[in-house]
Order: sequence, then structure tokens, then C-alpha cells
Amino acid sequence: MKKSVNYNYAFVFYDVGEKRVQKVFKVCKKYLSHFQFSVFRGEMTPSKFIALRNDLKKVIDENEDFVCIIKLMNDNVFGEETLGKSDHETGEALIL
Amino acid sequence: MKKSVNYNYAFVFYDVGEKRVQKVFKVCKKYLSHFQFSVFRGEMTPSKFIALRNDLKKVIDENEDFVCIIKLMNDNVFGEETLGKSDHETGEALIL
Repeated sequence: MKKSVNYNYAFVFYDVGEKRVQKVFKVCKKYLSHFQFSVFRGEMTPSKFIALRNDLKKVIDENEDFVCIIKLMNDNVFGEETLGKSDHETGEALIL
Repeated sequence: MKKSVNYNYAFVFYDVGEKRVQKVFKVCKKYLSHFQFSVFRGEMTPSKFIALRNDLKKVIDENEDFVCIIKLMNDNVFGEETLGKSDHETGEALIL
């Protein structure tokens, strides 16, 4: 039986219709911190993953929108580099 | 001395000015596969990471653009879930 992995960290990025951007943003904000325009990240728990997925399913249009959840064991298994505007304001102000 | 980690997989996402989107797209395409509008992913090597970063620095405007490179040890350390349009065409056709 495949060993089930406990994921404790996540990146979420989405590409959704303009009418639903705010709703998806709000759902993600409940579970994760806003990182970049359509990218969220943060610590997660198995039960929070389930709740996030269910909440997202309620607000997206499965025929038009696209959401990707990258689940990581913890925040030690990845490295990170940013180029350009490092003090990239989270862009929340730009959510109209 | 901190053990240096060999990263062999990467996600790259970017938020760049319209005038530079095609150039950044082309650079990423040299090293990774296109996953979603502004997201690339794929297997990497330490030397490819260096080359990718140098190529990106040549085309972005460090004061306006934002690129994030998430480096992973391999493709076993993360899980993935997508919601919505799973047959999400890579959007390459949408690059004007």
C-alpha cells in the first residue's frame, strides 16, 4: 500500500475568470498568505487541504477556470529565488 | 557548514510587463515546460538553474518585473491537485 504523505505546505496558483477572481482570492486568503497576484502560499494541514478544495469548488467554474495546488511535505523541501522587484507589494490593493 | 541541497525540479512563475512577456516566455521555454499562462515547470540541474537565472536577468526589468523560482529536490517531494479545466491547453496559442 502506497505510504500516504502528510503535506504541510502549499503553493496555490489560479487562472480564473474575472467575475470570480475576488471570490477565489477570498477563499485562498482564508487558508494561505497572498504571495503574488494569483499565487498564494503557506503552511497547511491535511484537513485544511480538504476544506480549501471544497471551498474552491463552490466558487470556480470548472469549465472555465484553472486552479493548481502544489502540496509540499514542509517548507524545508524547497528553495526559492526571486528576481526583480523583491519588495513586490502583494498586489492586494490592485484587486478591483 | 549548511549541507548544500541539489535541486532537480523547479516551478517558475512570473509577473512581468507586457512588453517583456514574450521574451521571458521564450527564456523559460528553453529550460522548462509551459504549464499555465505564467507558470513553467520541469526537471532542472544546478548548472541549468544558473543559466536560467542569467538569461532571465538579461530580459527582465528588475524595477518592474517579478519572477519566482521554486526549487525542489525532485518531483517526489510534492503532490499536486488541479481543479477546473484539467485539459487546460497550455495557453501558448494565447501569447500574442
